[in-house]
Amino acid sequence: MVSKPAPDSPPGSAGGTPTRRSERSRRAIFDAALALVGEVGYDKLTIEGIASRAGVGKQTIYRWWPSKAAVLLDAFTADSDEDYAEGLPDTGDLAADLKFVLRATADEFNDPAFQAPYRALAVAGANDEEVSRAFVGRLLEPGIRVYVERLRAAQEAGEVAADVDVRVAAEMVLSPFSQRWLMRTGPLTHEFVDTLVDQVLRGLRPRG
Amino acid sequence: MVSKPAPDSPPGSAGGTPTRRSERSRRAIFDAALALVGEVGYDKLTIEGIASRAGVGKQTIYRWWPSKAAVLLDAFTADSDEDYAEGLPDTGDLAADLKFVLRATADEFNDPAFQAPYRALAVAGANDEEVSRAFVGRLLEPGIRVYVERLRAAQEAGEVAADVDVRVAAEMVLSPFSQRWLMRTGPLTHEFVDTLVDQVLRGLRPRG
Repeated sequence: MVSKPAPDSPPGSAGGTPTRRSERSRRAIFDAALALVGEVGYDKLTIEGIASRAGVGKQTIYRWWPSKAAVLLDAFTADSDEDYAEGLPDTGDLAADLKFVLRATADEFNDPAFQAPYRALAVAGANDEEVSRAFVGRLLEPGIRVYVERLRAAQEAGEVAADVDVRVAAEMVLSPFSQRWLMRTGPLTHEFVDTLVDQVLRGLRPRG
Repeated sequence: MVSKPAPDSPPGSAGGTPTRRSERSRRAIFDAALALVGEVGYDKLTIEGIASRAGVGKQTIYRWWPSKAAVLLDAFTADSDEDYAEGLPDTGDLAADLKFVLRATADEFNDPAFQAPYRALAVAGANDEEVSRAFVGRLLEPGIRVYVERLRAAQEAGEVAADVDVRVAAEMVLSPFSQRWLMRTGPLTHEFVDTLVDQVLRGLRPRG
């Protein structure tokens, strides 16, 4: 689904000087794709629908992206790539940094407008292995990696024990959060986030 | 979707003496529903399709269940209710008990035949709030609860610190497992299960 390479690079992504007009089209296409997938779900999303909502011809979309999955992933990562490049804050206080970021993330995921397109993509990924590979590779993995890196920095600083598996530790923080949101098994409150972070970190500290 | 009460109780569930014939029909309907939903997904599952695969009339199904969601949930819980009633093993060694159960669960979820219908229901739940309520209430919550109870028993035995939030602790064990499976972010190996259990439990032990 996203394996075919795009026949041409979308403006502003992989080099070339985008004109202001094509940058406006790109942003309109991303906004249309995110809004539509939240409204109709992944299965009913079409390139035609995105083009019509964005006010562009569908050939404009096909020139830059080979599939709806490719448009959506670029739309999501247009913002997240920057966040991920920065990594998590590192004030030297691991608990405070994790709580700060996860509280803000909880606020985002409690916002219906933010969460609808993300849920549509997560559902499509859970359902379909090919969508899943792209979703995990482009969005979930980079999101987990910034936590793994922050935990590794804490490990080097002696705040986390040397024998801790930081990848599994990152999942101990992130998965209960994601699971509550995706399966609706509990509310994403600041209190939950704080308890989760404290309880995970108390097991990671060096002993003795 | 599952809010309408069933016009009649399915045989063998809520009392009444089922005849052997209707018990055979019930089992055939459950098997057909689980097989079909794994093949075609939740959206394309129909009562007609289940009836045809089970070799019963569709009125037989409508007599006992108001919707396809109700059939599916009964099909899943026909087996899980018994497991949940028993609870987790309690040998007095919390780590060993959790690893034992989660390794077996990993083997189940790595089996394509077992996981396909469960994935279809999880996807439907992630997508739709009404399906979600039934899925969480009938399957996920009872599944989490047996872990909460096992952790509480360990807390009473002094193996887990008194100030631990056992609900969040249960999610720290279960969610990374579920997330790896549902979003395909990593393999469900015995090694992963063991690392996860050890790393969670090391934070729960009484201090000093």
